[in-house]
Amino acid sequence: MTHLIDRSVIDAHNARLQRDLDSDYAHLGEQLARRGIDIETVRAQVAAFGVAIPSWGVGTGGTRFARFPGQGEPRHVFDKLQDCGVIQQLARATPTVSLHIPWDKCSDWNELRQTASAYGLAFDAMNSNTFSDQKGQAHSYKYGSLTHTDAATRAQAVAHNLECIEIGQKLGSRALTVWVGDGSNFPGQQHFRRAFDRYLDSSAQIYAALPSDWRMFLEHKIAEPAFYSTVIQDWGSSFLAAQALGPKAQCLVDLGHHAPNVNIELIVARLIAAGKLAGFHFNDSKYGDDDLDAGSVSPYRLFLVFNELVAAAHEGVPFEPAYMLDQSHNVTDPIESLMTSAAQVLRTYAQALLVDRQALDAAQDGNDAMTATHLLKQGFQTDVTPILQRVRLDAGGAIDPVGAYRASGYRQRVAGERPAVVGGSGGIV
Amino acid sequence: MTHLIDRSVIDAHNARLQRDLDSDYAHLGEQLARRGIDIETVRAQVAAFGVAIPSWGVGTGGTRFARFPGQGEPRHVFDKLQDCGVIQQLARATPTVSLHIPWDKCSDWNELRQTASAYGLAFDAMNSNTFSDQKGQAHSYKYGSLTHTDAATRAQAVAHNLECIEIGQKLGSRALTVWVGDGSNFPGQQHFRRAFDRYLDSSAQIYAALPSDWRMFLEHKIAEPAFYSTVIQDWGSSFLAAQALGPKAQCLVDLGHHAPNVNIELIVARLIAAGKLAGFHFNDSKYGDDDLDAGSVSPYRLFLVFNELVAAAHEGVPFEPAYMLDQSHNVTDPIESLMTSAAQVLRTYAQALLVDRQALDAAQDGNDAMTATHLLKQGFQTDVTPILQRVRLDAGGAIDPVGAYRASGYRQRVAGERPAVVGGSGGIV
Amino acid sequence: MTHLIDRSVIDAHNARLQRDLDSDYAHLGEQLARRGIDIETVRAQVAAFGVAIPSWGVGTGGTRFARFPGQGEPRHVFDKLQDCGVIQQLARATPTVSLHIPWDKCSDWNELRQTASAYGLAFDAMNSNTFSDQKGQAHSYKYGSLTHTDAATRAQAVAHNLECIEIGQKLGSRALTVWVGDGSNFPGQQHFRRAFDRYLDSSAQIYAALPSDWRMFLEHKIAEPAFYSTVIQDWGSSFLAAQALGPKAQCLVDLGHHAPNVNIELIVARLIAAGKLAGFHFNDSKYGDDDLDAGSVSPYRLFLVFNELVAAAHEGVPFEPAYMLDQSHNVTDPIESLMTSAAQVLRTYAQALLVDRQALDAAQDGNDAMTATHLLKQGFQTDVTPILQRVRLDAGGAIDPVGAYRASGYRQRVAGERPAVVGGSGGIV
Amino acid sequence: MTHLIDRSVIDAHNARLQRDLDSDYAHLGEQLARRGIDIETVRAQVAAFGVAIPSWGVGTGGTRFARFPGQGEPRHVFDKLQDCGVIQQLARATPTVSLHIPWDKCSDWNELRQTASAYGLAFDAMNSNTFSDQKGQAHSYKYGSLTHTDAATRAQAVAHNLECIEIGQKLGSRALTVWVGDGSNFPGQQHFRRAFDRYLDSSAQIYAALPSDWRMFLEHKIAEPAFYSTVIQDWGSSFLAAQALGPKAQCLVDLGHHAPNVNIELIVARLIAAGKLAGFHFNDSKYGDDDLDAGSVSPYRLFLVFNELVAAAHEGVPFEPAYMLDQSHNVTDPIESLMTSAAQVLRTYAQALLVDRQALDAAQDGNDAMTATHLLKQGFQTDVTPILQRVRLDAGGAIDPVGAYRASGYRQRVAGERPAVVGGSGGIV
Repeated sequence: MTHLIDRSVIDAHNARLQRDLDSDYAHLGEQLARRGIDIETVRAQVAAFGVAIPSWGVGTGGTRFARFPGQGEPRHVFDKLQDCGVIQQLARATPTVSLHIPWDKCSDWNELRQTASAYGLAFDAMNSNTFSDQKGQAHSYKYGSLTHTDAATRAQAVAHNLECIEIGQKLGSRALTVWVGDGSNFPGQQHFRRAFDRYLDSSAQIYAALPSDWRMFLEHKIAEPAFYSTVIQDWGSSFLAAQALGPKAQCLVDLGHHAPNVNIELIVARLIAAGKLAGFHFNDSKYGDDDLDAGSVSPYRLFLVFNELVAAAHEGVPFEPAYMLDQSHNVTDPIESLMTSAAQVLRTYAQALLVDRQALDAAQDGNDAMTATHLLKQGFQTDVTPILQRVRLDAGGAIDPVGAYRASGYRQRVAGERPAVVGGSGGIV
Repeated sequence: MTHLIDRSVIDAHNARLQRDLDSDYAHLGEQLARRGIDIETVRAQVAAFGVAIPSWGVGTGGTRFARFPGQGEPRHVFDKLQDCGVIQQLARATPTVSLHIPWDKCSDWNELRQTASAYGLAFDAMNSNTFSDQKGQAHSYKYGSLTHTDAATRAQAVAHNLECIEIGQKLGSRALTVWVGDGSNFPGQQHFRRAFDRYLDSSAQIYAALPSDWRMFLEHKIAEPAFYSTVIQDWGSSFLAAQALGPKAQCLVDLGHHAPNVNIELIVARLIAAGKLAGFHFNDSKYGDDDLDAGSVSPYRLFLVFNELVAAAHEGVPFEPAYMLDQSHNVTDPIESLMTSAAQVLRTYAQALLVDRQALDAAQDGNDAMTATHLLKQGFQTDVTPILQRVRLDAGGAIDPVGAYRASGYRQRVAGERPAVVGGSGGIV
Repeated sequence: MTHLIDRSVIDAHNARLQRDLDSDYAHLGEQLARRGIDIETVRAQVAAFGVAIPSWGVGTGGTRFARFPGQGEPRHVFDKLQDCGVIQQLARATPTVSLHIPWDKCSDWNELRQTASAYGLAFDAMNSNTFSDQKGQAHSYKYGSLTHTDAATRAQAVAHNLECIEIGQKLGSRALTVWVGDGSNFPGQQHFRRAFDRYLDSSAQIYAALPSDWRMFLEHKIAEPAFYSTVIQDWGSSFLAAQALGPKAQCLVDLGHHAPNVNIELIVARLIAAGKLAGFHFNDSKYGDDDLDAGSVSPYRLFLVFNELVAAAHEGVPFEPAYMLDQSHNVTDPIESLMTSAAQVLRTYAQALLVDRQALDAAQDGNDAMTATHLLKQGFQTDVTPILQRVRLDAGGAIDPVGAYRASGYRQRVAGERPAVVGGSGGIV
Repeated sequence: MTHLIDRSVIDAHNARLQRDLDSDYAHLGEQLARRGIDIETVRAQVAAFGVAIPSWGVGTGGTRFARFPGQGEPRHVFDKLQDCGVIQQLARATPTVSLHIPWDKCSDWNELRQTASAYGLAFDAMNSNTFSDQKGQAHSYKYGSLTHTDAATRAQAVAHNLECIEIGQKLGSRALTVWVGDGSNFPGQQHFRRAFDRYLDSSAQIYAALPSDWRMFLEHKIAEPAFYSTVIQDWGSSFLAAQALGPKAQCLVDLGHHAPNVNIELIVARLIAAGKLAGFHFNDSKYGDDDLDAGSVSPYRLFLVFNELVAAAHEGVPFEPAYMLDQSHNVTDPIESLMTSAAQVLRTYAQALLVDRQALDAAQDGNDAMTATHLLKQGFQTDVTPILQRVRLDAGGAIDPVGAYRASGYRQRVAGERPAVVGGSGGIV
């Protein structure tokens, strides 16, 4: 296994923190024992939990107004993988990477797979891109891709998705995530029902090409880049499509893709019950598809999503959600944001595991809202930091990943290797 | 047929306006002819269109803070019917009334049906009420009705719905609208999946009792009265339920029951395509379920909904939506609001009929967004008032219903017959 | 001091919990010491913090659809005071009560003040009511109160506010909260500028009657009961009015009174800087003015508000916010909700006190967003339960107020004394 | 005056349409006369109304996901001016252009001014850009511009604004529009009060440099590019800043920059009353800052804004709003969108002029909401197309600008002169 960060840096860092961790962990164990919870069981569950990193997440993101690159921006998929390797080495919560085609195209997929393996990384869902044009592309996606009125453009978009599957098979991926921005900016521009039919038709061709052990994740979004209507605008449309396609098609939930005020955890429950929950793109949002760091603005909302997941698992509901971070890191070092966000996801999972499900059942049955909600809060208010730290430490990572990362000088090192990127305007000009 | 408003009042009113109407109608006919539209065809379609009045709509509405009754508030269902009769006599757009049980309970349903008939009215969908407790009720709906954790409470709610069907059969109704406010105010209070399962189970019992020619309309709503989660919170959940129940169950769209920014006309298109559009509760909203007068704030949104309906009818999609006004008249005379709102619905329908569907198809196929949206706007910007006036005049109504109503002195008359109602606080205290 | 709950019940309850509290408190003290924080200092600050209870909050709330009363509903202001006394005895965080006129009118204000005093309670801001009509009222508020087009109606509303001040002076209150629902339901119904001018004119008359040591709190709200426009619809209008009135007029922030997505803590910061922050009506909301329990849905948002307050206090900004809970308890025992919500407010205050302000300043100056946000999260993630428990215990309250309350049988006792209240519909019918 | 489109094309086009126009105009005149309105007076008012075009609006816009350029994209400010000239020649509603620095920098401002003059164009407000970095810029705006924690960065941003004023003076502009995206993506990242103070300090330096006959327009926006907080996030903060700066500073309203559900026309009324309305950036939005074509989605909302403007002018309130289109044309030919949008603005203005202000006053005073709202609707429902067509015809433009434009072959012509632009991703990668 390739060590991207010198072990001695991590060890020295951990050494300074371990005494406090031991004290905190012991006291937390005592507290949890009073509630009838074995901290070791929780720790084992958290240790087994992983969330994927999107390859594009390690580069600095931007808006339509501008992008402000940082130092040492990754130049290609190998640089991106290396950054993901650092994240996994320190934070031990992100064992897989999700690629985006064509952004991550390379000449030797076998080499890529071996490189990943050396970093302790495997490949999660593949992501296709039919929301922007690539150089030399025969047909433009200006007016749509899988739903375009022109058959040749749809065929091109389908073919691109098939290529993503093909690449994914070489890398050991087992899922294809399909997000299309197709929609319209003017009332009347698009025939709603026909566009949806074209979506189903194109998607069926992709579905037909799925290997038997693959799944197809349909991702809905209320708006952007289309600002009047979007073809797969909500979970209802996503569900209709997934149902039409077949059992391997499921609905992916991105936390920032909903209308204001929508109760996302309730949608998650519906999709679980319908056997159609594909998984998640984790991030946080205050205004729209803000792609902020997971749990950075609404940590309790994230907890309520995990509460649904843990409850379903507790009740033996069969489901297998895929977890990925999907964030835009505009003002932070992406590596720091991704380590912190992965930890936030694990923190939230751990907190949801602490909820007394039996007592909750009783409170719900008895309509004791006060007790029921207190049981959730009790989990959420518990500071599970010691569990997270211990999981990382046990796995060879850093008790404090950001601290160790800063101490390592990794960013400065790659800034010397990778040429500076000039910022500029975003999509508007 | 009972004339509630003296014909001479209407005739005198119309006499003053007819000359201008004739001139405007002739010029509009000429304008439409240039576009290849026969005004008489449009007139006939508008004349055949009707929208139901909810019986509760003729009383002054209120908020949780207060209700400020007007003069001559209807005392019982017979008073309400009479007010609906006035609306239909003058505005000629509302041939049916939708009852709410138990608010509209009476001792002789046969008498009610005959009275309605004398006013030229028939009965639309029946509405059940399990969102408030009635005197002497065995089980409270405080914590839910069809989804209550207690089986006896659910059974009571089911029985109430069966009674509504029974009454509806006596009145010639052919549909039952089920709206439940069931949900929760606290995270954890309700087990989302179990509550939905209980909803399906209770609803299946109601569905089983539907006469063969009836439909069951499921009405979704994002929130209120439950403020954290609602069982049928959106069209996705409504669709899941309607699909589980069977072909007679369909999804009702109330324009005020969605999250902010949601594209309602797109939902309408999805439900049409899925064969699950039950119909509409028309009203307008700026903030939430405001129950403002239809088209009073967002007339173009209403147009875009009708554009979907007219397009689907034009293409021969089989569907039969039910239309009802569902508004809360807090600061106007409900009779005036209902006449005006019905006219607004007809206006919008007429405007949607004017869209050149063939040209629109071509623009959509060619991705000519500018032309496509202009074709919709062309319909919307046409002042179809002369068509509406002529339809009313031809049917024996008033060219200007509000003017004729005010001239008739009806409100003052019933104010003398019906005792004054004292206002007061709403639900909060 | 009158003990409404038997001390022995509380003592027995506390006795069972104290050992764990001592252990938790000691460990938390150790943890905080590592961060350079003295737990005793924090404890003292939390012990000195109080939040007012609105008298109407101890009754079960409702919506426009229905109200479902609980057992032992308070009959009058003395019953309400008694319930507030229980809350304060057990939870020790709510030393004041805020009255609502005319709901809380009584024949002997002196007796009321003495009763309150015996419960250890004083009186917070007075609340006027011009959003619903009272029996025998000369002029209706159907079309507005302080902004009504009719001068006599405005004069009546002004007089009512003066009466509230008069009563408040008898009770030792020092502020008047003015919330008006005045606005419109239809475009065109109200002349926006003239309505605002009338608001200023009426308010100036109230302002002129304020005793020298009083403040006037202006409360804004985006919508409801008016659903197209509201006169004081946001903090901008509230600020304009407060500025026009004078230094004793300030802007009150109710957490549920804003448009979706609005950053409330940023508004708080603006009002602090402008010297116009009156204080808060605490509650939580997911969809609108839901009046859910404070911090029950968005606890981190509440924290971010307190972060602004603690920061301003830390920097010596002169301000003196008033704190009140303003919630509608529809499905819980109001006493339990109020004790829990007050504790949530104190918890959040305590967490905000833990933020390292010096480090935060440095991170902000250096644009280290990751560190800055982590410093806030560090405070928020700390489980300060032991501090809250210790504060209550030290003050003679219950370590676990809800547990002690349930053990006391208080609700069953008053259910025997106070007649059952029949539920019913809300404002809609 | 340079004719960019051959007069014969326009004349031929008009010739085919004039007969119908004459008939429609005559009938409309007759209809308006019945309402006591002189169509010639309205025509003259509409003819005198102009709305500025933003120079960047003639290029194809994009999102953070992608930009899909069209044919003949303008290469520089002279190309942009030429496109604006075409728009003005055909649609006769856009006599001014608003420049954006540095995008529109050129080597000879005098030449630019003369070119504009030849096209019949003058220069509206200048727009500065401190939301993206320019090549060779000393300090990055990644963490802010006017509010940056670093004094040198703030100084650079101030200097850029001073340069914009300087350029504007050369061009005959009389206003500077300042929009900053400054804000934060994480709770804690920015000290709210200090950032606002820095904004005031920097803005005061710009304000001090304003020529005596210039105004400074402050533009607020709820979010984007900053997704947790924005320094000038709403009209309240904009007003505070404008008030602090002085009488030449006013608040600019962009229709897409508000929280969901917000009543924009009410904000307009408040700013008019406070003497702080700078003017408008017209566009439409369904989800956020969508920058859709003005009135394309919510035409009645635009009407309600104009209703405030016309009412204030009618009442003699002193104000002088600046009007500009600010849209992103992603799927249409920008020239077509801008001509259509300008016509939509004029249409809406004309409709607002038709409202019977005296009758409206009476209805408002008498709380006759039904009549009041009907008076607005009466204006809005009037099809004023003949007035717009006649105004264009009289001024030498095209009765149907889009039709004449398509007939002229202008786009094909410039596509031959201007090199094709390759599309690509937006800000995200």
